[in-house]
Amino acid sequence: MLTKEGCLIRQKRLWDTLPESVEWVIITNPRHVKYFSNIWVNPVSFSAGQSVWLHMKRSGKVTALSDNFTFKSLSGEAFVDETVEEVWYDGVHSVENRDHMPGQALKKTFGTLHLSEGIFEWDSFPAAGFETVEGEPPSDLVLGDVIKKLRRQKDPDEVEHLKSCMGACEAGHVAGKEIVKPGVTDMDVYRAVNNAVLEHVGRPCVVYGDFRATNAETPKVGGLPVSYTLQDGDLFLLDYSVVLEGYRSDFTNTIAVGTPSPEQDALLNACLASLESGEKVLRSNATCREVFATCSKRLVKEGFNPLPHHAGHGLGLEHPEPPVFVPESTDILMNGDVVTVEPGNYIPGVGGVRIERNYLITKKGSENLSHHKISLK
Amino acid sequence: MLTKEGCLIRQKRLWDTLPESVEWVIITNPRHVKYFSNIWVNPVSFSAGQSVWLHMKRSGKVTALSDNFTFKSLSGEAFVDETVEEVWYDGVHSVENRDHMPGQALKKTFGTLHLSEGIFEWDSFPAAGFETVEGEPPSDLVLGDVIKKLRRQKDPDEVEHLKSCMGACEAGHVAGKEIVKPGVTDMDVYRAVNNAVLEHVGRPCVVYGDFRATNAETPKVGGLPVSYTLQDGDLFLLDYSVVLEGYRSDFTNTIAVGTPSPEQDALLNACLASLESGEKVLRSNATCREVFATCSKRLVKEGFNPLPHHAGHGLGLEHPEPPVFVPESTDILMNGDVVTVEPGNYIPGVGGVRIERNYLITKKGSENLSHHKISLK
Repeated sequence: MLTKEGCLIRQKRLWDTLPESVEWVIITNPRHVKYFSNIWVNPVSFSAGQSVWLHMKRSGKVTALSDNFTFKSLSGEAFVDETVEEVWYDGVHSVENRDHMPGQALKKTFGTLHLSEGIFEWDSFPAAGFETVEGEPPSDLVLGDVIKKLRRQKDPDEVEHLKSCMGACEAGHVAGKEIVKPGVTDMDVYRAVNNAVLEHVGRPCVVYGDFRATNAETPKVGGLPVSYTLQDGDLFLLDYSVVLEGYRSDFTNTIAVGTPSPEQDALLNACLASLESGEKVLRSNATCREVFATCSKRLVKEGFNPLPHHAGHGLGLEHPEPPVFVPESTDILMNGDVVTVEPGNYIPGVGGVRIERNYLITKKGSENLSHHKISLK
Repeated sequence: MLTKEGCLIRQKRLWDTLPESVEWVIITNPRHVKYFSNIWVNPVSFSAGQSVWLHMKRSGKVTALSDNFTFKSLSGEAFVDETVEEVWYDGVHSVENRDHMPGQALKKTFGTLHLSEGIFEWDSFPAAGFETVEGEPPSDLVLGDVIKKLRRQKDPDEVEHLKSCMGACEAGHVAGKEIVKPGVTDMDVYRAVNNAVLEHVGRPCVVYGDFRATNAETPKVGGLPVSYTLQDGDLFLLDYSVVLEGYRSDFTNTIAVGTPSPEQDALLNACLASLESGEKVLRSNATCREVFATCSKRLVKEGFNPLPHHAGHGLGLEHPEPPVFVPESTDILMNGDVVTVEPGNYIPGVGGVRIERNYLITKKGSENLSHHKISLK
């Protein structure tokens, strides 16, 4: 989980970024509520999809607003000064529309809000809330864009939290390698990975990604399992994320179903070489198109095709998130970026291989955050 | 999943409810997007939390709007006439804020929208979208409230879909009964139930609820597992939901850890009697306070305490949703309501027991939708 100290650092960074005339902000994007307060509505709960809003003042006071049931469904501690619970359901009376509760709590607590003094996240603040707003916005500043830019450079508590996602993902990769064999289904693999992740984490969480077999006839597929039975000679793409309170891992191994062919071994080795080359150019201020070009060229040098998809992307509260390793990327790596590198090739007659690791970008280079074993067997 | 026919019936019902002057509606609540189009962004995907919007015309045309990556993450078929994909990420260029995409797609496709002609879901439509809106709303009608009322009476395709949730939940209850014994943890129970549900369903889904042990010292607890090791004499409350594409089950059994005591047996029997009494008063036009009173009085008649929480609630795309079985409820049961009935008692020195079934309300009574075995052993 995030720390109180980390949340305070991020709040201060936001205030340092905003014009001095801004006295308060209303945060309504769930990822940003998490970022500044550690509040995360558990998606494995009856409150999935319900909202908590933050009213944050430049003077430092942070107020969280929601209905009384959503506050029962938080994952982890809320680092706020005040909690305003609008009673939606008291167990005695009928209920009205739960979705109105954060807005009602905001109105009751803060009355009319004057746009000369503060900023909303307009891309997630519901239009219904306009009834409590007066005046014209003082600037064209898009608060959501500002915060998303701040999110690129992860703080130490975010990196620690991401490492816990990576650790769970590693546990799932061990289970994946154990279960993949002819005769099991891709759904069996999902269940085994999911179960190992849950055992490692010790609490319910979400596991998503590509759990699919490729082969000579269909070298490239992706997505969740489709109850396909693995065949001898297939290559299983195990490319998935573990989400803990919004933050997530995302790394990949390809596992041979049965004994890999020499061509499959060569394909994996080319991807390993590409990954190694990509790793070497990771450092703050490197261009993201250079990372893509490096990975792709190395695949060609090893005798395979240019990289047919991105070479990786940023990772955090979203997936993918900036920066992206693509041919025309204008992104520049920053100290504190957390990224994936994921070379792959998909060859008719052979099958598909993709491998992937996650890295923290530093001034001198990068730190590998994912310690799963990359190998076909 | 929902059917195309069902979606068309629900669209027609909405148009029949709205004033004739309303030519179009913009649907932005994810549950309502599902309700009218079967579009559901898979929460087990990298697009969890992203939005698809619907533009629905009275003349019948339905347009879905989102970014190109969110459309890759739908669970099931989209019953719409047109799909507008705003390209957020093309795999070649850097990306901007993904959250802006549905609004951009709306603006490009429909230009300025005049409020004299249509209605938005103001409680979920983001204020940023106001730049494409002109004029004043023609009425105070709150579209979200209107749709939530329509949602009470489930259509046949919704009931079928709910039955598939119930079937998966039953499979989990079998696994729960098998694993509960002294020495296993509540998290072990969660994993076993989750795994059995996934095996039954054949695709990733969400399982949430109460997975907790009660006992003489702590007769009432709830929530997700906390890695407690079950002790001989505990009573395990297994009260959970399986969510498939937004719809969900919610039923309960209490399982004895070891051999139940005579007092624990008596407590379960009282709850069974209460459930039976509650079932008998279920029928359209019954008052929800009567259901509560019936369940509670029967517990007292059997020698236990009045029911200390609600006797049940509506179930569908939300949980709980109206109607609610509580002392001061003003709700009246409707034909097509899907509800739970869940009597419980929590006795110091004995432990807690709660049991629960799900029912479809009919004109003559109810249909039990949950066929798990209710028993301590």
